[in-house]
Amino acid sequence: MSEIEPESHTPPANTDDNSIRCLDHGFVRLVDVMGNDQSIVQSARVSYGKGTKNVRADRGLIRYLMKHQHTTPFEMVEFKFHVKCPIFVARQWIRHRTANVNEISGRYSVMEDTFWEPRPEDFRLQGSSNRQGSSSESVDNSKSSELSEQFKADQRLLYKHYEEAIAAGTAREVARVNLPLSLYTEWYWKCDLHNLLHFLRLRMDAHAQLEIRVFADAMATFVKQYCPIAWEAFEEFSLNAAKLACSERNLISQLLTEHKLWDELEKRRTAQLQEDGASESTVRREIEELCQTLNKE
Amino acid sequence: MSEIEPESHTPPANTDDNSIRCLDHGFVRLVDVMGNDQSIVQSARVSYGKGTKNVRADRGLIRYLMKHQHTTPFEMVEFKFHVKCPIFVARQWIRHRTANVNEISGRYSVMEDTFWEPRPEDFRLQGSSNRQGSSSESVDNSKSSELSEQFKADQRLLYKHYEEAIAAGTAREVARVNLPLSLYTEWYWKCDLHNLLHFLRLRMDAHAQLEIRVFADAMATFVKQYCPIAWEAFEEFSLNAAKLACSERNLISQLLTEHKLWDELEKRRTAQLQEDGASESTVRREIEELCQTLNKE
Amino acid sequence: MSEIEPESHTPPANTDDNSIRCLDHGFVRLVDVMGNDQSIVQSARVSYGKGTKNVRADRGLIRYLMKHQHTTPFEMVEFKFHVKCPIFVARQWIRHRTANVNEISGRYSVMEDTFWEPRPEDFRLQGSSNRQGSSSESVDNSKSSELSEQFKADQRLLYKHYEEAIAAGTAREVARVNLPLSLYTEWYWKCDLHNLLHFLRLRMDAHAQLEIRVFADAMATFVKQYCPIAWEAFEEFSLNAAKLACSERNLISQLLTEHKLWDELEKRRTAQLQEDGASESTVRREIEELCQTLNKE
Amino acid sequence: MSEIEPESHTPPANTDDNSIRCLDHGFVRLVDVMGNDQSIVQSARVSYGKGTKNVRADRGLIRYLMKHQHTTPFEMVEFKFHVKCPIFVARQWIRHRTANVNEISGRYSVMEDTFWEPRPEDFRLQGSSNRQGSSSESVDNSKSSELSEQFKADQRLLYKHYEEAIAAGTAREVARVNLPLSLYTEWYWKCDLHNLLHFLRLRMDAHAQLEIRVFADAMATFVKQYCPIAWEAFEEFSLNAAKLACSERNLISQLLTEHKLWDELEKRRTAQLQEDGASESTVRREIEELCQTLNKE
Repeated sequence: MSEIEPESHTPPANTDDNSIRCLDHGFVRLVDVMGNDQSIVQSARVSYGKGTKNVRADRGLIRYLMKHQHTTPFEMVEFKFHVKCPIFVARQWIRHRTANVNEISGRYSVMEDTFWEPRPEDFRLQGSSNRQGSSSESVDNSKSSELSEQFKADQRLLYKHYEEAIAAGTAREVARVNLPLSLYTEWYWKCDLHNLLHFLRLRMDAHAQLEIRVFADAMATFVKQYCPIAWEAFEEFSLNAAKLACSERNLISQLLTEHKLWDELEKRRTAQLQEDGASESTVRREIEELCQTLNKE
Repeated sequence: MSEIEPESHTPPANTDDNSIRCLDHGFVRLVDVMGNDQSIVQSARVSYGKGTKNVRADRGLIRYLMKHQHTTPFEMVEFKFHVKCPIFVARQWIRHRTANVNEISGRYSVMEDTFWEPRPEDFRLQGSSNRQGSSSESVDNSKSSELSEQFKADQRLLYKHYEEAIAAGTAREVARVNLPLSLYTEWYWKCDLHNLLHFLRLRMDAHAQLEIRVFADAMATFVKQYCPIAWEAFEEFSLNAAKLACSERNLISQLLTEHKLWDELEKRRTAQLQEDGASESTVRREIEELCQTLNKE
Repeated sequence: MSEIEPESHTPPANTDDNSIRCLDHGFVRLVDVMGNDQSIVQSARVSYGKGTKNVRADRGLIRYLMKHQHTTPFEMVEFKFHVKCPIFVARQWIRHRTANVNEISGRYSVMEDTFWEPRPEDFRLQGSSNRQGSSSESVDNSKSSELSEQFKADQRLLYKHYEEAIAAGTAREVARVNLPLSLYTEWYWKCDLHNLLHFLRLRMDAHAQLEIRVFADAMATFVKQYCPIAWEAFEEFSLNAAKLACSERNLISQLLTEHKLWDELEKRRTAQLQEDGASESTVRREIEELCQTLNKE
Repeated sequence: MSEIEPESHTPPANTDDNSIRCLDHGFVRLVDVMGNDQSIVQSARVSYGKGTKNVRADRGLIRYLMKHQHTTPFEMVEFKFHVKCPIFVARQWIRHRTANVNEISGRYSVMEDTFWEPRPEDFRLQGSSNRQGSSSESVDNSKSSELSEQFKADQRLLYKHYEEAIAAGTAREVARVNLPLSLYTEWYWKCDLHNLLHFLRLRMDAHAQLEIRVFADAMATFVKQYCPIAWEAFEEFSLNAAKLACSERNLISQLLTEHKLWDELEKRRTAQLQEDGASESTVRREIEELCQTLNKE
């Protein structure tokens, strides 16, 4: 087993460098990472055993795994974050069930007086279609300023009443029930890379609520830093990939055939891959897979 | 395979009969059940295959499985509930990650004006130890009445401001951020029996917050009705079982030895088991296991 | 809650009708189903709450959910199967961790004398690329007949030695260690529809081993029967969908632009959707999403 | 956040030191560890937030968490192992679904000629009760020697036929179907500490098959080394804890009452705890909990 090197750790050198501020009072702090691009390759190679003679470049292997959804090697890398986010964000986040979570408890602790205080520009308009949560424009200026002030005043009022209930001896678990979803909570959140990327694909999406996208973006910064090759493959084959329904694919295929564009497509794809340094056999496989994907007759 | 009968379904005959009111405006409604005590036995018997010649009584087998934590047959029964509960209850509930959940979304829907409105007696005092959430006594009368009124007034105020924000065109996902944790939410929640019992063991416990125990108790009612034998075994071997630390067990064992109480213990246990209808071999096994558990020298 | 009807069950009427033979001695038997297409719709509607005024047709909603990977409503349907398959198939199958499994135990039971007996034509040639498991052609005739006889003779020999070890009093857990991966095992396997479809997407794929595809196909038959609308959506948006890497998508997009084919594509897509009965607003949304997916400038 | 120190890593210094041989040709090699006892404490403290003023000793907190089954902080530590074990061991192992696994594939790689070769003494007798897998005695000498030779001869024969099938061009996925369960496989296996301890509790148990206990013991060695305080708490409150059924507990309680042994029990428990360095308040809480557990009237 001597050929398998112990994995190198690159633990956060400095707490200050490992914290990214999110929204007004939140943050994502990287607590620890287990593994890196190299660990993906190592564990993938156990699948191929001694039988695989030609040593592929790590990047090629990682891209191959990502493209073909061989997901288990990506589960071999683990990220641990310390996060402070509003409860309405936490409620979306927690739906991802494959992570480990340790959250501050409003039963045991008196909650801190920290809220997401929406600025006028945060009062985005409802999207015109039901599906789209909000539009890029905001409620008009004077109204949104008024709403912003009102929301902040309500937060102060609720916290005051919370404190009064606590002062009267009320159990924390009861006193907190009127605290709003804009209150900040904190947790430790630990997740393997495969499930983290799944989270990021959903939560960096334009349809996700802006306030959770800020946290997803922060986590992405750390993934990119610690697993640059896996991140690049993720962008190419997942985050920015295009999924066509069967009937859509068939239309594209028809058009390519009718307009005799297959040769041109293959030529350009070959050039693209060669520029990326792909070997001849990789180019051949990629072209073949593309034709299959597009159902070339 | 003819020996394995198709499972009988006992689907809720009537919606009214399958809903249990919880707190002021909440409920647990049983939507569907897959399987029953018989399904536990059927799937357990596949483990024993043809090799098991003597047909055990179903009850004996289910108790054996529960006692020895052979948990997979209990996963073969599935319950589906429709639940309406306050968000602070939902936040505790969702920590159980093995269930399937579909919750109403405050991004897509305008939330209903329904809150858990704490009565004066709900303002329980903080428990004297940090660990215990609340005590059985409440904040004194006049203060708790005042708090109750204040909390309800705040709920009305917050909902009014929510409606104003919506009326101004604010996206629902933003307008809702100041709604409090006492707001009711709704979900479909589906879980297998093993994981449901685990949930109930934790959430029917005296240390769980009273407001979630109400929902756990409601679900327990349905489990008891549809899987009475499994429920009885759960009470005996899990819910009301006693777990002793190794060092505690050793003290008990010493005392039993020093006071020559082993024979008496075994005699009483035998009588207890015989009264329960246990076979001779079961009695023998049970006595042997009890002595091992208590580390009888 | 009166608008939400209790779910109808369609339990297997007859064991004989619910069993599909697989390979030489295996089968997939449907034991029970909880829910159907209607249950997906019901639980999805809880997400949209009262806020959704226009009642979409069920099919439209299911297709929308499948396309946009809103997966939780599909988790509300549960299938339970009784399966008999060779151990090498079971070893691939068990990697799907979200299911509940109860397998016959070689520690408790004497294993039956039933093996997958490969016929000459089952000795497929190794695929030319490492990635492809096997080719569609087989080892040449006389050699494959010889191998088939040899494999069957070995199975008989191993089982004879297993029986001898058992006869000598050897514990089953030890006696079985030389039984081959071609031995049949049995289990109960229960899985929600979302995870079952994920399983089917991977195991009905041309790259999956032929012997597990047979079992996946059998399960698919049952899914199609009990959830026909979800199945149709699965075929369109997942099983037969086409995933293009970002760089591939960009090439297609360039070609469509250079050859001025966008209008033609949109025209044909519109016709296709109209033929399928899509509403005007659905057509508009679909066209818009297609252009986004293909990155139309 | 400056009070929270970055976690220290203690990566395996030397591959040779991190491998424990198991059975004849197997091993457990520690590849990487994320976190330690300190990480459990850190993430637990986020639950208590700023509200907890008195800093408990780490050991006290870890023991409290373990005793009261506050399991999430233990999920914050992650172990990664490289394991080589026979397939029949791997088949039991893989039933633990919460781990991440990357196994060598018999479809992609030609399997190595390495088997668990049972020695005469490994042919243990079947346990007298169905429940107990095997007894501590073995099949008598001459017979067990004969079986051992036979099993080894069969392994050689099967591997020879495997090689012949491969040589004839048979796909690996087919050629391997007659390889026996005694064949060694390899995998990377990654698991959080909570789920790893659950695995160890089940697989270090006297009822687990001896051949998997060897691997569990090896992993335990590493856990003990990297998380000594958690391990000690695990032994006290889980591995060596005693679980009494409700009716058994009631008998013990009766006996203690009838023989007036409660005071003596409390006295001894107090002495035990004081010797262990427990604070006065811990002693008080522990005594109270013990009386509740045993249902002292």
